[in-house]
Amino acid sequence: MAFSPLIQNLIDALRCLPGVGPKSAQRMAFHLLQRDRPGAARLADALVKAVDNVGECAECRLLTEQPICDICASPRRDRSLMCIVESPADVFALEQATDYSGVYFVLMGRLSPLDGIGPKELGLERLEARFAAGEVKEIILATNPTVEGEATAQYIAEMAHEHNVVTSRIAHGVPIGGELEYVDSGTLSHAFAGRREYR
Amino acid sequence: MAFSPLIQNLIDALRCLPGVGPKSAQRMAFHLLQRDRPGAARLADALVKAVDNVGECAECRLLTEQPICDICASPRRDRSLMCIVESPADVFALEQATDYSGVYFVLMGRLSPLDGIGPKELGLERLEARFAAGEVKEIILATNPTVEGEATAQYIAEMAHEHNVVTSRIAHGVPIGGELEYVDSGTLSHAFAGRREYR
Ligand SMILES: [Zn+2]
Ligand SMILES: [Zn+2]
Repeated sequence: MAFSPLIQNLIDALRCLPGVGPKSAQRMAFHLLQRDRPGAARLADALVKAVDNVGECAECRLLTEQPICDICASPRRDRSLMCIVESPADVFALEQATDYSGVYFVLMGRLSPLDGIGPKELGLERLEARFAAGEVKEIILATNPTVEGEATAQYIAEMAHEHNVVTSRIAHGVPIGGELEYVDSGTLSHAFAGRREYR
Repeated sequence: MAFSPLIQNLIDALRCLPGVGPKSAQRMAFHLLQRDRPGAARLADALVKAVDNVGECAECRLLTEQPICDICASPRRDRSLMCIVESPADVFALEQATDYSGVYFVLMGRLSPLDGIGPKELGLERLEARFAAGEVKEIILATNPTVEGEATAQYIAEMAHEHNVVTSRIAHGVPIGGELEYVDSGTLSHAFAGRREYR
């Protein structure tokens, strides 16, 4: 015996969430239908609004529903200092862990030729244009300390050197192979403060 | 620095899912917005359709988008035999584990006076009316082997005895304190086959 079509459809759709397998999708579907229909309706609404309205900041690629994100729009941020990260979650982790006052550039990924992710997909042309424009004096490379994150950092460092932009890499301290987003604030703060010039 | 309002709203809304804390809600929101917007749109659509259309079967209270569920509507099911469970997930677990050919009654809960869940909330008036109508000859009590599940079984057994309905309780074998829905098929099948009369 199968679930009725709309229930099966909901179970299948919940599988798009990371870490949700068939059993937990089933549990979630029943929970929502039996005990939290208002929550399910709110979730549907939040999904539609976010999908329809959230895009990338035109300057740093951070996810935002405005043309320019709050950080890039703030007059209190130092636009000559730029921290380069792989994902929006990294921005929030750094904002919580440090008192960094520069701006960011979000790659939305890392160089991964096998997955078809090259410089273009990471917006590196736009980044180089900003280097060329001369406003950025220093960058902090905060890509993850994985093989691909290192390769990405190297690539950007070469670009930066061509434009005489001072370049540093956040200190190891972030566990090798780990994801920045999951590091505790203390480690992250330490790694950020202990960054060193990158050649 | 806070997330932009629509992103924070999505993170908050994802918390309605069981087992999803602040960190995994954040991870889910970023995953959907960065990598799976079609999945997010499908999920929103599935949620709306399920919330709007899925209700309870008028006979057994199973979740379904039809007035009567497939089991109750089937001419191949024995309507004189009724298995009583706490939740729709239990029906699916039993259907997968056994060759049971009777019908079900889904309580959508268990007696829990402290939570305001009494006989009325479990549809026991409707259940008693079905006993009184004489079609049901035998019931199998398959509520969970928890304190509240046992109390619920006792209550229904007394109702059944008044109407001379033969009553059995699924065998222990389901671990005490456990939830039916999470038991492996073998144990569940064994417990179901080894049910004994309930007095
Ligand atoms: Zn920005
Ligand atoms: Zn039914």
